[in-house]
Amino acid sequence: MTDIISSMRPEIENELMHQVSRLDEEHSLPFKEMLTYHLGWTGEGAGEEATGKRIRPLLLLLTTATCGTDWKKALPAAAAVELVHNFSLVHDDIQDNSPKRRGRPTVWVKWGSPLAINVGDALFVLSNLAMTDLASDFPTDRVLESVRILQQTCLDLTRGQYLDMSFEDRTDVKVEDYWMMVAGKTASLLSASCHIGAILGNADESTVEAYRSFGHFLGLAFQVQDDILGIWGDENVTGKSAASDLIERKKTLPVLAGLGKQGPFAEFWNNVPITPDNVEEAAKLLASESAYTYTHDIAKQMTDLAINSIREADPQGEAGDALMDLADRLLHRTT
Amino acid sequence: MTDIISSMRPEIENELMHQVSRLDEEHSLPFKEMLTYHLGWTGEGAGEEATGKRIRPLLLLLTTATCGTDWKKALPAAAAVELVHNFSLVHDDIQDNSPKRRGRPTVWVKWGSPLAINVGDALFVLSNLAMTDLASDFPTDRVLESVRILQQTCLDLTRGQYLDMSFEDRTDVKVEDYWMMVAGKTASLLSASCHIGAILGNADESTVEAYRSFGHFLGLAFQVQDDILGIWGDENVTGKSAASDLIERKKTLPVLAGLGKQGPFAEFWNNVPITPDNVEEAAKLLASESAYTYTHDIAKQMTDLAINSIREADPQGEAGDALMDLADRLLHRTT
Repeated sequence: MTDIISSMRPEIENELMHQVSRLDEEHSLPFKEMLTYHLGWTGEGAGEEATGKRIRPLLLLLTTATCGTDWKKALPAAAAVELVHNFSLVHDDIQDNSPKRRGRPTVWVKWGSPLAINVGDALFVLSNLAMTDLASDFPTDRVLESVRILQQTCLDLTRGQYLDMSFEDRTDVKVEDYWMMVAGKTASLLSASCHIGAILGNADESTVEAYRSFGHFLGLAFQVQDDILGIWGDENVTGKSAASDLIERKKTLPVLAGLGKQGPFAEFWNNVPITPDNVEEAAKLLASESAYTYTHDIAKQMTDLAINSIREADPQGEAGDALMDLADRLLHRTT
Repeated sequence: MTDIISSMRPEIENELMHQVSRLDEEHSLPFKEMLTYHLGWTGEGAGEEATGKRIRPLLLLLTTATCGTDWKKALPAAAAVELVHNFSLVHDDIQDNSPKRRGRPTVWVKWGSPLAINVGDALFVLSNLAMTDLASDFPTDRVLESVRILQQTCLDLTRGQYLDMSFEDRTDVKVEDYWMMVAGKTASLLSASCHIGAILGNADESTVEAYRSFGHFLGLAFQVQDDILGIWGDENVTGKSAASDLIERKKTLPVLAGLGKQGPFAEFWNNVPITPDNVEEAAKLLASESAYTYTHDIAKQMTDLAINSIREADPQGEAGDALMDLADRLLHRTT
């Protein structure tokens, strides 16, 4: 971890805590507790493992810094993108019936769905309030532009979430549907983080566009890699059982590519329930129909597009080096 | 209905449709349909009965108009407060397990909770995007101030919602807890509607404060009346079975007042399940312990405070008359 990132991390946590402290009021303290639990600060299992990687705020702050603007001024926006991310996770966990998040019981498991819905709502509201704090350090038109970008992203998120849920019952999902879903669910917020970072950094139009585009392709590459790891990942490295995406019947890119072949994998998928016992066979069948190489090639393409975009943005200084470094780690991850 | 309100109503619907049209995209049309169903425009039972009264946008527009500003410019804010209201209703219906809303099956009943959570989220996002549209007609600092007011209100809503849910399992709820919950759940958004209307109308500070305060007390009076109607309302007039709040064991103001007496009503409440057969007895018992007159007096006090505030604001012109008229109808309702 480079020095600048080490100095950003505690400031991000402080800013998040400051934003969540809007719930500091005797009567709502048990409610605040549900938010701080989810954010990884309180409750059983609290600590670094439970907070998540804070990738979105880091991307935002590094982008602002490399544009030559004091990144500390952008902290409310960094908190805002992280709060949006966590709002979507809390609701996602209810929608997907997920029992665990970052190794701990999810909010809905601990407090029930009605309260968990409210926790997600409050995280979103706190994000919106955080954005208004930018007005003390930035011109109001730039603040409003940032608000607009973030809200447009939130609309993309809900649309992506709708598509994702609708895929479950559909048998006609195509690769282009996949891209639309992933653009909304994963790429949009990563893109907005870089985009807002550049806007607050007062970058010129073409640089802003380069950062926006970098975040977008980073998100797509990230998701496609995730799809690969979810089927052929090394269990010992990823920490989750390999091929679990197949058992959960997730319509990931390799699966859609495989189904498109209408060959042995499609036959298997449509007729045999995939269990821990036959999942390795299913994964091999899928690879034998070139779905592994196909998806790998696409991940490579998206990675190249992301790298081209960030080279175009040409990040400078210590923050620039750290940003290139972070991009590199995100684009070549094995976990 | 006065002339100015008749001309506002269709414009409010148009603006809402314009805001919701952000979901016009082939792939998200079935999702958009869920929002338009909830807003009363599509699906079985669509029509005036299903749209709700649009009280919040009317209050906002009338306030702006009476300050001498063209109310049409404030339409995006009017849509925004109505969208926030509906976002909270959709989530509330899931949280309360409510099967019906405005006489029709609720969104979660029709499409399941996971999608309904997403519908509420999208309504909230659309509200936030609507607010950014104000920038084309108002100075950005006034837009940001309005955004801040609305988001602070949304935080009050989630806090009020938390308190409401926590009351269900608590046996120690006091009258002061009730006020805190109602201030968040009901009064805050009515207050924000008037407050934002006055800010956009560029009213002076004391007038802004008078409108804000009017909305606040209007909300409290409205809720206390609702509590009375929910126990002693005329079934033939309210359209819902009288005393249903007692059967649902809602901790309304009259109930909390009655429980505070620790007399025969408290005894009944704590030991006998309230059913359609004994609910009339329970309502009479509650009235005999002065809970009816107590609550009625409080409703009168809140109404007086609301009227004092609006008199202080001194609304002018046709919009002013219409606002006084609307306030009067809301404060002396029987349904």
